[in-house]
Amino acid sequence: MNRQELIQQIRSKSSFLCVGLDTDLKKIPSFLHVFPDPVFEFNKRIIDATKDCCVAYKLNTAFYECLGVVGWESLAKTLDYIPKEHFTIADAKRGDIGNTSTMYARTFFETMDFDAVTVAPYMGHDSVEPFLAFEDKWVILLGLTSNSGSQDFQHLQIEGERLFERVLKTATTWGNPGNLMFVAGATQAELFSDLRKIAPEHFFLVPGVGAQGGSLERVAEHGLTEDCGLLVNSSRGIIYQGTDEDFDSSAREAAKKMQQEMESLMSQPQKA
Amino acid sequence: MNRQELIQQIRSKSSFLCVGLDTDLKKIPSFLHVFPDPVFEFNKRIIDATKDCCVAYKLNTAFYECLGVVGWESLAKTLDYIPKEHFTIADAKRGDIGNTSTMYARTFFETMDFDAVTVAPYMGHDSVEPFLAFEDKWVILLGLTSNSGSQDFQHLQIEGERLFERVLKTATTWGNPGNLMFVAGATQAELFSDLRKIAPEHFFLVPGVGAQGGSLERVAEHGLTEDCGLLVNSSRGIIYQGTDEDFDSSAREAAKKMQQEMESLMSQPQKA
Repeated sequence: MNRQELIQQIRSKSSFLCVGLDTDLKKIPSFLHVFPDPVFEFNKRIIDATKDCCVAYKLNTAFYECLGVVGWESLAKTLDYIPKEHFTIADAKRGDIGNTSTMYARTFFETMDFDAVTVAPYMGHDSVEPFLAFEDKWVILLGLTSNSGSQDFQHLQIEGERLFERVLKTATTWGNPGNLMFVAGATQAELFSDLRKIAPEHFFLVPGVGAQGGSLERVAEHGLTEDCGLLVNSSRGIIYQGTDEDFDSSAREAAKKMQQEMESLMSQPQKA
Repeated sequence: MNRQELIQQIRSKSSFLCVGLDTDLKKIPSFLHVFPDPVFEFNKRIIDATKDCCVAYKLNTAFYECLGVVGWESLAKTLDYIPKEHFTIADAKRGDIGNTSTMYARTFFETMDFDAVTVAPYMGHDSVEPFLAFEDKWVILLGLTSNSGSQDFQHLQIEGERLFERVLKTATTWGNPGNLMFVAGATQAELFSDLRKIAPEHFFLVPGVGAQGGSLERVAEHGLTEDCGLLVNSSRGIIYQGTDEDFDSSAREAAKKMQQEMESLMSQPQKA
């Protein structure tokens, strides 16, 4: 999916919501366990219930890998089930030397057909560029993450700037707003204005709203651009709202509420 | 496997060789393609041919993932086939927020039974600690990598030290020489003395000898300790030495040659 198609979808749905399918076999309603593939069955119903409220789905690969081959199958089936109009993200946090990153890029862009994959920056340009070589595919590079460990290295001062700022600055020379996004955690929304100075047009994928404590309003205040420029993810706050046979209705309600809040925020004049 | 068992194996084999099973379907001898699982068949023969020369096997997950479900099966079968005395590494370069890192840890330590997994440091303590919570399992944290992109961020100056030094210094407060190793690329062997000041006892997993241009002699000169303290990986330099039905003999010759060089280097007095 290219940038224009993504922006078009955001405008037509008045939503920049990404639903995170961090599907944990231990947390899904028990009645689903009679199905041959309970994880896929759960995802299918979540997708049916939320697809008109969101523009993207993010599949956290860890939750599928930990089930072994069966999980890998659920992942592939879920991706196939997501409507083509949705932007799909493999939240895999990969990154390795060049020939290995090429293999990861082929995994997520060819063997499977994701639009984007999250990538870690520590190994530098040749660990990221193989992903950028695919047309209409995206790298979502870790910039400023939402977890407490983000304080350990990302905020270190380097020649007058912080490491996360250097990462963004350097990475904007590798990719462009049409193939590169950044992860920017909602728990650090007050720093988004600093990020926007470096990357005014790039999309930010924003985890950390809800369960992790970030606020959608502050994210929008500091991060929204004319083209929206945000994909705000919610996983636990949507998919685990219900625990019985009605879980999909509860998920829909939570997603709809976020979409409506987003619609209201998008209608206000943007600062960024 | 615990530290003493690893050191014992290194001493008894006079080897600190790790064979990297970066098995690429496009590069294995063509006669193997008649087998139901050519990747596993290749690995099986490489393992049979090299197991007395090496102490560890490193499986680069990218090469398996890119084949989809079938590749994930080859990975699991290969791991099962490796003799129990060998140290096994999932070279997966994972790392995410706490609950997700826990899922990755369960993937590689429970669903599969690897001894170690490589982890990226950018997200900080809570992305690494879930892996350290498993007994007799290991984190191998990216420190100083072997690729050209390592120059982009790892060498940045931070308050009088370089980022890779800060990563090692901080991480040694999370784990200990019994559950934490560092990736240290052979192409930067002259910096191993600096790494040894911070981590005198921790094992280093050293990629980059051979195809990437690193020298085993320089690695040993700057990195060997009384307990050896090194696992030197070779992938392409061993597994792709031959292209016909004798490929396993060629791999054995290359592994044996490295083992003999290691034996000679270990018998010399250590500087570190």
